[in-house]
Amino acid sequence: MVKRMGKQTVKLQNPPSISAFAAVGGKMEGDGPLASSFDFLSEDSYFGADSWESAESAMLKKCFDLAIGKSGIKTEELDYIFTGDLLNQCVGSAFAIKDSEVPMFGLFGACSTMAESLSLAAMTIDGGFANNVCAMTSSHFCSAERQFRMPLSYGNQRTPTAQWTATAAGALILNTSEIGPFVTHITTGKIVDCGINDAANMGSAMAPAALETILTHLADTGRSPDYYDMIVTGDLGKVGHTILLELAQNSGFDLSTVCYDCGMLIYDLEKQDVHAGGSGCGCSASVLAGHLLPKMRSGEIEKILLAATGALMSPTTAMQGDSILGICHAVAIEINKIV
Amino acid sequence: MVKRMGKQTVKLQNPPSISAFAAVGGKMEGDGPLASSFDFLSEDSYFGADSWESAESAMLKKCFDLAIGKSGIKTEELDYIFTGDLLNQCVGSAFAIKDSEVPMFGLFGACSTMAESLSLAAMTIDGGFANNVCAMTSSHFCSAERQFRMPLSYGNQRTPTAQWTATAAGALILNTSEIGPFVTHITTGKIVDCGINDAANMGSAMAPAALETILTHLADTGRSPDYYDMIVTGDLGKVGHTILLELAQNSGFDLSTVCYDCGMLIYDLEKQDVHAGGSGCGCSASVLAGHLLPKMRSGEIEKILLAATGALMSPTTAMQGDSILGICHAVAIEINKIV
Repeated sequence: MVKRMGKQTVKLQNPPSISAFAAVGGKMEGDGPLASSFDFLSEDSYFGADSWESAESAMLKKCFDLAIGKSGIKTEELDYIFTGDLLNQCVGSAFAIKDSEVPMFGLFGACSTMAESLSLAAMTIDGGFANNVCAMTSSHFCSAERQFRMPLSYGNQRTPTAQWTATAAGALILNTSEIGPFVTHITTGKIVDCGINDAANMGSAMAPAALETILTHLADTGRSPDYYDMIVTGDLGKVGHTILLELAQNSGFDLSTVCYDCGMLIYDLEKQDVHAGGSGCGCSASVLAGHLLPKMRSGEIEKILLAATGALMSPTTAMQGDSILGICHAVAIEINKIV
Repeated sequence: MVKRMGKQTVKLQNPPSISAFAAVGGKMEGDGPLASSFDFLSEDSYFGADSWESAESAMLKKCFDLAIGKSGIKTEELDYIFTGDLLNQCVGSAFAIKDSEVPMFGLFGACSTMAESLSLAAMTIDGGFANNVCAMTSSHFCSAERQFRMPLSYGNQRTPTAQWTATAAGALILNTSEIGPFVTHITTGKIVDCGINDAANMGSAMAPAALETILTHLADTGRSPDYYDMIVTGDLGKVGHTILLELAQNSGFDLSTVCYDCGMLIYDLEKQDVHAGGSGCGCSASVLAGHLLPKMRSGEIEKILLAATGALMSPTTAMQGDSILGICHAVAIEINKIV
């Protein structure tokens, strides 16, 4: 049984159900337009922990526990957890689940991690390797800032193209239940290097990767953009989103009415001091788990393409003058299983 | 079709073939007992690049190119690359394959990455999602030392329990060919936290995870240790290997005659100044690709269990007093497909 369609897409034979989901956020996220969509919001940056790195793990663990609680299954019924984050050596994820006793596949996809983990989780179920799988990820503004940029107390000035790393997490439980929504197609991205090397302008570096994966997905599946209620990138921010629409226009596709960006949904870009918008693995993860999937379950929207983008670089490669590599993984999620 | 066996193991329905493989190493590896098993050895640490980080990418790219060359397939026939490494944000891997135009799943499993990538590569083929997949990983002594420990020029004194990060890479090409050897079973590990927090003693932190995964694999499959010609951990080093044998003995299993460690195979621990032995993703990857798989293809050995171990920690978590989390992923590789 070959499940491949076109160049980079697989069609799942028995689309796995995203049967439960949870989103957790911090203070900035609680001040934003999606505040009511979070299952839990912390009043501070610490989530009861004593360092920002531990806080990120505590936040992700909280999110995992909430998703498990809503799923009706027990933690020990999980066959795998697919998780990763932005912290060096993905320690946010490792410490979040260290006591779970669930087999773990660690991932690094930068801000594309939600789509990457969802892709692999869905494949392990459709492939017959697992019954219940968790896909999740997180990011934390404070741990990311001091690792990637400057100590927060230094009060570094941020450029207008900079994005704000969301303090947020999202966790999904997948299995073969009939609840839905369902993962129907997966288009896995390849690295796109456009030579951009301004680490405060990730949106520009990732937009071409988003274009590449979205257009490949449409070609592979024979779908037009308006097949979807929403094509949701995560996270290009305002700068990258504008570039994506223009690049698409140049390729003959009008994505302007169907394309949204998690980094622009999670914050109020006019009222909140987030510059070009949100970013971080937790941004698309929490917007998916808190905002989009509930809208699908209520029937408000029926078909989305999550196109999560990641910037594959480190402070070291940036300082050595290397460019910022973009990648985008897309996952089609639909409320009808038969496609 | 449920492919699960016991708690943590899957049995592949149509065991994928590891149809081609290549190993690349540096100078220390070329001075070691497995020198002749490498497809390419660099005379220096740079592999023609101008930084150690770029050198790691150049080394991994060289290894990828060699494996593709031996496979008889073209790069564009690859459906996925599964790769990761020890560098922050896994940039070693990202820059190695940035021009390959192959869809990529980025992984972080620390030194367990070879087994993690091999597990997922095999599942995507057995699950019908891919025809040709590459699983690979790398590590580099110089880039790892300065990232995890001290600037090399500082001449930091190393403790006797410390391991030497191998400058090495391994790449495998998997598909449905009939050549073999074949991936027959996968036992995915969970995190084991024994509270060890000496970052210069990784072997002790990882040995309990190795025990847990190996014993679970044996229980899940109903096999005894002597079913395998070799159970190969990677990389516990001499200290961790001794602990593993003792822990196994305490659990009623004698692994002393069947268990080997990649970190002890790759170097001459008496003559080379590597303290407790080798480590790094590239150690088990190159020992597998350069030493073990050729022995299987020649018929010298028929069945191995690769049990690659990883230490999930970062310098930040270590400095914050967190313990070193161990994980071990096991993959059964056999020359006969029908098991």
